Amino acid sequence: MKVEHIGIAVNKLEQAEPLYQTLLNSSAYKREEVESEGVITSFFRAGATKIELLEATRPDSPIARFIERRGEGLHHIAFEVEDIQAEMARLRAAGFRLLNEQPKRGADNKWVCFVHPKDCQGVLVELCQEIRE
Amino acid sequence: MKVEHIGIAVNKLEQAEPLYQTLLNSSAYKREEVESEGVITSFFRAGATKIELLEATRPDSPIARFIERRGEGLHHIAFEVEDIQAEMARLRAAGFRLLNEQPKRGADNKWVCFVHPKDCQGVLVELCQEIRE
Repeated sequence: MKVEHIGIAVNKLEQAEPLYQTLLNSSAYKREEVESEGVITSFFRAGATKIELLEATRPDSPIARFIERRGEGLHHIAFEVEDIQAEMARLRAAGFRLLNEQPKRGADNKWVCFVHPKDCQGVLVELCQEIRE
Repeated sequence: MKVEHIGIAVNKLEQAEPLYQTLLNSSAYKREEVESEGVITSFFRAGATKIELLEATRPDSPIARFIERRGEGLHHIAFEVEDIQAEMARLRAAGFRLLNEQPKRGADNKWVCFVHPKDCQGVLVELCQEIRE
């Protein structure tokens, strides 16, 4: 498993994007809305890994609820896997609770599945696999 | 800047290490105590990036205080830089507040410097550079 990206919950991309541009000394290379999740995302490259800034597009978005509870900040780590179904089965068998029973479409042309933070020492873990079709 | 590692604050390495071993399907490859920071760290490889689990060794450790306030979970992102003094100067000039004025010795043979989370959308950012001597 490799770290594909790190997700950061922010109030406003308008403010966070230029700031991360300065911090990382590189520009965001794309924005993408994931309507089903109620987020707009903005991606930066940082070596082999990406930084994904996430802004909520509606009050019931998971990102809006996260910021309400904990404020802006680190939201999740995404690990890229070769075969998401196999990894989901492996983790389920090992006792990890998955937040979605089937892979769902995420940003950046990926199948994604989230693992319960309570089973990962408080960390929201995403598994992701490139959609090949 | 590339993501060198992601730091995760945990209560007990005894419990978190086997769990991350299962999650990542790979073993921790070293433990290291950083006495000045009051932490024991445990490292996993995840592609080009590392996962660093952090357990406090004393109640006034930054990790103990973090867990008290927020619970276990994602603690910081570390970016590897070529020249930490130059990056510190660049970020200082851009208005970022640094938590240490000079690089200090961190885990894994690195000079490290932390950037204030208030200047990074709630994210504790570490800059790190290999110690060459």
